[in-house]
Amino acid sequence: MRTLLVIGIGTGNPEHVTIQAVRALNTVDVVFALDKGREKADLVELRREICARYLTERPYRFVEAQDPERDRNPADYGATVEAWHAARAALYETMIEGELGEAGTGAILVWGDPSLYDSTLRILERILARGRLALAVRVIPGITSVQALAAGHRIPLNRIGGPIHITTGRQVAEGLPAGTDTTVVMLDGHPRFDHLDPDLTIYWGAYLGTADEILVAGRLGTVAAEILDVRAAARARHGWIMDTYLLRAPDPA
Amino acid sequence: MRTLLVIGIGTGNPEHVTIQAVRALNTVDVVFALDKGREKADLVELRREICARYLTERPYRFVEAQDPERDRNPADYGATVEAWHAARAALYETMIEGELGEAGTGAILVWGDPSLYDSTLRILERILARGRLALAVRVIPGITSVQALAAGHRIPLNRIGGPIHITTGRQVAEGLPAGTDTTVVMLDGHPRFDHLDPDLTIYWGAYLGTADEILVAGRLGTVAAEILDVRAAARARHGWIMDTYLLRAPDPA
Repeated sequence: MRTLLVIGIGTGNPEHVTIQAVRALNTVDVVFALDKGREKADLVELRREICARYLTERPYRFVEAQDPERDRNPADYGATVEAWHAARAALYETMIEGELGEAGTGAILVWGDPSLYDSTLRILERILARGRLALAVRVIPGITSVQALAAGHRIPLNRIGGPIHITTGRQVAEGLPAGTDTTVVMLDGHPRFDHLDPDLTIYWGAYLGTADEILVAGRLGTVAAEILDVRAAARARHGWIMDTYLLRAPDPA
Repeated sequence: MRTLLVIGIGTGNPEHVTIQAVRALNTVDVVFALDKGREKADLVELRREICARYLTERPYRFVEAQDPERDRNPADYGATVEAWHAARAALYETMIEGELGEAGTGAILVWGDPSLYDSTLRILERILARGRLALAVRVIPGITSVQALAAGHRIPLNRIGGPIHITTGRQVAEGLPAGTDTTVVMLDGHPRFDHLDPDLTIYWGAYLGTADEILVAGRLGTVAAEILDVRAAARARHGWIMDTYLLRAPDPA
């Protein structure tokens, strides 16, 4: 049976890779990747650098294909994601069947951790459900941007004994969930803060873990404009941006 | 100035350690540790093993002290945690001042990640606030049990685009938060499931990432009794247990 490793590689710092990931990489025959046309050349390069740096004990091949196009601001979010997952599953199935020997080991390298806002495991689930390809899947966790954000700001995510709510820009567009004092927002392509309590504390970070890391923290009402300015300038400079932020309610004490 | 590294070392698998952590460890003069009297000998041993395995490029010292006693089921949770943090801060301050040279680098190794339900950063914040000791603090993220749980079960934490609520056993004792379809529960010393919707799906794991890992998943009403039995038996066998679980609401679709 073919084995497929889904390996979390962290947020862009090649040293986020774990020893477990390095060991797993060195069992691999083929590294599969779907390149987003719009994807950041820096990140594609980094994935190759990670393989070159750590996959040193055996020959391997890099097999890349173009990621199916996806509408980023669709009218029907659910149906669009569904179609995109189906297209990715078909593409991966073809790549794995054609490029990986029947007892071979392949790897898909995932930014951050495969468990957090990543579609790879859902896509493999689809391939397994179709039943044409038998695959043993193994998951190797990696450092997420949530952890890199907290590390950069040197803060705990939670208040003492308190909960943490992790969500997306889409979900907080209408406001924060009630009764949660710590909210981490990911995948927010168009952050706006004007509908939120200005007395929240924000911890914002971009390019987390990399040499280009930017961190801003403070009272939301005071630093929101600065964050949006810094964000726009950095995005123009790099041609892309990946950022994450944590919002903390004022201390009730 | 003294430097103090707060290094996340993962959940008990020595290979959870990142390359960044290995590099950081190899700049260290002293590794500080507070041993809980009740702490698991296996874990203390693992911390030493991680240092022996990865801290290979220079001599270092291990400085250990006994962790201040703490009431695990206090009447006044806030006041008890406050007193315990104050005692830990005083102890660490004394250890760092006495054992680490004025330009030295020390490390505190944290299970999982320093950002998630760990007191180390709060305690260092206290030491800095006291102002007697100048410290440059750097945080190096590590794999959490939440990630190891998801990796073990090969599941994404979130539904597509959906939020994730991470909380403690204490918080879910009264029920799950409203409107959240995915809840991860940590630090639940006395799990009970009888007050929860039996149609939830549970993904439970113990000793995550280690050779002793145990995973159980299924409909809560069907597997709850099995989980409590497996948990009790494993706890008796090991003398301790660390476990985490994810609860997912039935798919609305």
